[in-house]
Amino acid sequence: MKPAPKPAATKAQMQRLLDSERFLRPWKFRLIRADGQECVVALPNSPSLERPGGIVNGPALMAAADVAMWLAIKSRLGMAHDALTSDLNTVFLAPATTKTVYCTARILKVGARRFFGTAECHDRSGRIFTHHTLTYVRVT
Amino acid sequence: MKPAPKPAATKAQMQRLLDSERFLRPWKFRLIRADGQECVVALPNSPSLERPGGIVNGPALMAAADVAMWLAIKSRLGMAHDALTSDLNTVFLAPATTKTVYCTARILKVGARRFFGTAECHDRSGRIFTHHTLTYVRVT
Amino acid sequence: MKPAPKPAATKAQMQRLLDSERFLRPWKFRLIRADGQECVVALPNSPSLERPGGIVNGPALMAAADVAMWLAIKSRLGMAHDALTSDLNTVFLAPATTKTVYCTARILKVGARRFFGTAECHDRSGRIFTHHTLTYVRVT
Amino acid sequence: MKPAPKPAATKAQMQRLLDSERFLRPWKFRLIRADGQECVVALPNSPSLERPGGIVNGPALMAAADVAMWLAIKSRLGMAHDALTSDLNTVFLAPATTKTVYCTARILKVGARRFFGTAECHDRSGRIFTHHTLTYVRVT
Repeated sequence: MKPAPKPAATKAQMQRLLDSERFLRPWKFRLIRADGQECVVALPNSPSLERPGGIVNGPALMAAADVAMWLAIKSRLGMAHDALTSDLNTVFLAPATTKTVYCTARILKVGARRFFGTAECHDRSGRIFTHHTLTYVRVT
Repeated sequence: MKPAPKPAATKAQMQRLLDSERFLRPWKFRLIRADGQECVVALPNSPSLERPGGIVNGPALMAAADVAMWLAIKSRLGMAHDALTSDLNTVFLAPATTKTVYCTARILKVGARRFFGTAECHDRSGRIFTHHTLTYVRVT
Repeated sequence: MKPAPKPAATKAQMQRLLDSERFLRPWKFRLIRADGQECVVALPNSPSLERPGGIVNGPALMAAADVAMWLAIKSRLGMAHDALTSDLNTVFLAPATTKTVYCTARILKVGARRFFGTAECHDRSGRIFTHHTLTYVRVT
Repeated sequence: MKPAPKPAATKAQMQRLLDSERFLRPWKFRLIRADGQECVVALPNSPSLERPGGIVNGPALMAAADVAMWLAIKSRLGMAHDALTSDLNTVFLAPATTKTVYCTARILKVGARRFFGTAECHDRSGRIFTHHTLTYVRVT
């Protein structure tokens, strides 16, 4: 794979999106980095995310994967462009109980209309909680 | 497929779960029915669920699928039993913009440890927004 | 869902495709029916399909799903049109050991470019061996 | 991820399996390497693998992924142990037309009963044709 292109969006622009979109605000996602190919977001754990058993609920981890890939694409195309999720497959591998969940998304293929990539939710040491594959379709 | 068994949990018990679990409360899910095999939940749309473009955000629909299957299983096993999602695959087929999104989950296979089924988010007339396959693993 | 359109290809035309394509011939697929929306094919079991344990090997069942959906689409569009698989998700639910494996594919959504549907491999009585979701992209 | 354990099966043992199993023989798979964590197999292209359009048929690529992961697991557990595919998700990213298709499978998680990993079919230079996620369940 070729070296990542220059990010087409700044970290501040992308964090602002996470903070301003009403549907995203409750998650309190924090952008760690996004370089046009790979994106890492942090999801702070809290009692409001816990399902019975004291583990982070599954939709929260799928949201993290969806958002991390969305920002990976924004960081490649620029904030004015948008893409919609067309497929998101998730495998839950281990319960997430850490204070912070990280999600790393990687674009593996950029087509004329479709983006394909993978994402993983993991802890700080790289222990994997979930594995995802995602396809996005460019709309603007 | 054999006739659905008698539900092992009441509608009131299951609605109480939707209302009391902190991680679920923000969605305001309403249980329409759950009979031990099939479960229908309603997700009321609102500005807080809209992603850019004015459509219901994807994680909300995946949450609906996850919850509908969870309650389908609860309605089969009883409230004291629990199961965790191990796989959830989603295909987004059409943008959801209706006032209410319905999600219908169906258990297709009950194994010794695994439950497998499908779910669809749709409008009142049956128009499909998303299609999901789900595997749950019984834990208690 | 609306009533299935008139099949745009005859059973004889589709069976000829199964018999003439070199990559398909070894499977000896037999078309049961295809009506523009649903397609059923039969896969005759034989020692050459058995993996250790005496069960039909997984790729054979995935091939059956792929072929059944391909013919469902041909039966809708006509033989002159083609579509390529873009996504195929499979869950293996029970080992297939019957003399004949049936695979039923259903088109659930026809878009401008994409077809989405499900398929199931099963025995004569409807017992499910595998469940599949498939997306095809129209190329001609 | 920890360093790969010593392979529990020799290359000759695994190639013999590919050559002797009737359901595998037609593919003429060649084992490149398998080290207990990662496995690479080669699938020689030929006219008998071509679907219309002159590209390698999809089931052949799914078979390559299934076999590569199977041998990755054999190389970890030893030839006397077996595991069955429980989930196999495939995304087709680009048509495969090369003389040889390589498939690289990687075990990402080893659980008490389940193995999870990814596989990719690609050409010699690393260009990806398909991406797969696979779950296997240990049976012996």
